[in-house]
Amino acid sequence: MNQPTEPKADKSGVRRHNLSLVLRTVHDAGETTRAAVAARVGLTRPAVSSLVEQLLELGFLVESGKTFSGQAGRPGTVLKPADTGPAGLGVEINVDYVTVCVVDLTGTDRVRRTERLDNRAAGAPDVLARAARIAADVLDTAAARRLAPAAAGLALPGLVSGGAVRQAPNLGWYEVDAERLFGEALTALRPGTAGLPLTSDNEANMAALAELWFGTLGDLRTFLHLTGEIGVGGAIVVHGELLRGAHGFAGEIGHLVVDAGGPRCRCGSRGCLEQYAGQAALLGAARAADVTDLADLAGAGEPRALAALAEAGRMLGRALSGAVNLLDPEAVVLGGIYPHLMPWLVPALAEELSDRVVSGLWTPDAGRLRPASATTDASRGAAALVLHDVLADPLAYATGTGA
Amino acid sequence: MNQPTEPKADKSGVRRHNLSLVLRTVHDAGETTRAAVAARVGLTRPAVSSLVEQLLELGFLVESGKTFSGQAGRPGTVLKPADTGPAGLGVEINVDYVTVCVVDLTGTDRVRRTERLDNRAAGAPDVLARAARIAADVLDTAAARRLAPAAAGLALPGLVSGGAVRQAPNLGWYEVDAERLFGEALTALRPGTAGLPLTSDNEANMAALAELWFGTLGDLRTFLHLTGEIGVGGAIVVHGELLRGAHGFAGEIGHLVVDAGGPRCRCGSRGCLEQYAGQAALLGAARAADVTDLADLAGAGEPRALAALAEAGRMLGRALSGAVNLLDPEAVVLGGIYPHLMPWLVPALAEELSDRVVSGLWTPDAGRLRPASATTDASRGAAALVLHDVLADPLAYATGTGA
Repeated sequence: MNQPTEPKADKSGVRRHNLSLVLRTVHDAGETTRAAVAARVGLTRPAVSSLVEQLLELGFLVESGKTFSGQAGRPGTVLKPADTGPAGLGVEINVDYVTVCVVDLTGTDRVRRTERLDNRAAGAPDVLARAARIAADVLDTAAARRLAPAAAGLALPGLVSGGAVRQAPNLGWYEVDAERLFGEALTALRPGTAGLPLTSDNEANMAALAELWFGTLGDLRTFLHLTGEIGVGGAIVVHGELLRGAHGFAGEIGHLVVDAGGPRCRCGSRGCLEQYAGQAALLGAARAADVTDLADLAGAGEPRALAALAEAGRMLGRALSGAVNLLDPEAVVLGGIYPHLMPWLVPALAEELSDRVVSGLWTPDAGRLRPASATTDASRGAAALVLHDVLADPLAYATGTGA
Repeated sequence: MNQPTEPKADKSGVRRHNLSLVLRTVHDAGETTRAAVAARVGLTRPAVSSLVEQLLELGFLVESGKTFSGQAGRPGTVLKPADTGPAGLGVEINVDYVTVCVVDLTGTDRVRRTERLDNRAAGAPDVLARAARIAADVLDTAAARRLAPAAAGLALPGLVSGGAVRQAPNLGWYEVDAERLFGEALTALRPGTAGLPLTSDNEANMAALAELWFGTLGDLRTFLHLTGEIGVGGAIVVHGELLRGAHGFAGEIGHLVVDAGGPRCRCGSRGCLEQYAGQAALLGAARAADVTDLADLAGAGEPRALAALAEAGRMLGRALSGAVNLLDPEAVVLGGIYPHLMPWLVPALAEELSDRVVSGLWTPDAGRLRPASATTDASRGAAALVLHDVLADPLAYATGTGA
């Protein structure tokens, strides 16, 4: 992955750390004052003022005309994270679509575009070049709103490590150097993005982060997150942290075996969950054109659609009962295509969980099955993940993003 | 659980922390000197000498007559963790046996006793009273070797939280207040153990800790640990830490479904792994009297034994492929009855993993399936777990264990 630019302004580790501390404090508060920041982080007012000045200059913070009385007494000018300047670029490449978004430092999704494409039909370099073209267009729109990317995150539907897709069976990708290909294609289109720091991860992990940071989970910090797409992605969050495993490949719930002698899966195994509950399998079994069509058919009581959804729910329940017995999460969050289909998936799914989870905590009325929030997806998670890095070391991401 | 006794000698948090720091430094070194400890922990020689004096008085450390030249120059008297005095009592209650051991501060297993008992035939209070009787006898032997328990750990075959067994289907236990019942029974037999701090956990977790601390895993820190007993226990270790889940119930790999319509399991589900690969299922299918008999039959090529082991291996592989796809461990450690049976279990098991693990990292020759060490088990893990607590705050465990 591209490394963030070395800072030029200040090499002091302590000041660098304190810049992050002040920026994160303002970010977490939403709106605050220098005095309140000083009280919160335990630095002197002059020290905080100096740090704030630098963050204002670099475009990470803005002042509003308002004043209010902070915790520490005297009224002060309100500080906020900038909603212009440094932003996160999030790119999700999935089997049948690409979504690109730009998220500003306040966490708001500011520009977003989705293109439906069959990414199985083109080679990996072409798909990544298409994604770069969409990203370039989105960045133009963002620039008109005075937002410039500080870093970019790529969400990819497969096993991802070291900036590359090791395998994405549903795309037919093996050992694809995704960050490099995307970065080169974007730089060719928009030379100003040369050197943009890139981070990549599995799309299910990115979607789970979006849910964790922007969703409606409240205090819930240990959960499984499923994303129903062509494949079925999974992510495991334990005490607020992604569980990535020894090689970064954890969470592959779509390849839990639900029927050992079942249909051959693109991963090489048989009877994997996604052969029953993935979008292609589900639409095929229901003879539906797309997810909206499937929901319409099910809503109208069409028997084949209802049977396909019940079967998918049963298989989801069978796989999830195993995952719940292994991981003991507080909840399971269903994302991607599943939130729209929950009325028909959940009865069989909940029954399997109730029958098979040893702890007895997964009764149908326990409220442990939750739809993902409508405003969270993998592209937003990808953008937020890189903004998380920006907040952790703003100086490293300051070049080219100044006011 | 019983809380450790409040310290009487010194209430200073800093000194208390430093006592632990010095004790852990000597423990990790095995043998060292005051000067080397001072250099290592960054305290002055006089400060370290004062802390060492207290640890010697309380019986946590001993001096040997030897002197040697430490890292910090001058020869000094050798310090070691005491192999008398404060020790960990480990108690494993399983379905068909109870094992009790005493582990000294050096980590050595000093006294050990196993009794074969059918713990399904008696009620929970009787089983815990029997375990207390065995523990009392073991403590007598330990006392003759000048070892006194500083704390006790209970390893139990089921879902454990808050000192109680929530469920142990193979024992027929539900909501059994195990720590209290065991503690009361032990105190009745040996009044000197009144107030002994108690900790309890699932036996598979305790066995995994024993493997982590005393096994032959080397740098391996992310693994699944299976223990084949009447049930099939599982534990998940990620980067050297047990993954316990939201309620402490993680790791129930024995109840992963390997055949959805298979035989009814005591947990209420059907087709759970332990219906194929648990000891009772395996011996029944092979018509073997015990594990030694089963290995003998298999070694002699008896077809029924070979078929039962191949089927158990296949089902282990099916469940483990799901667990590996979810958790991406570096290795799977097979404990309990499995190490003796690996020659006949592994071929089918490895083939399933090779066919079904998406990452492709689980080829049969990758060496990722390992037998548990012969010297690690849940009772030793239980003793080591409580010693870990002792090392973290020796003053809290000092009462009654002084030299």
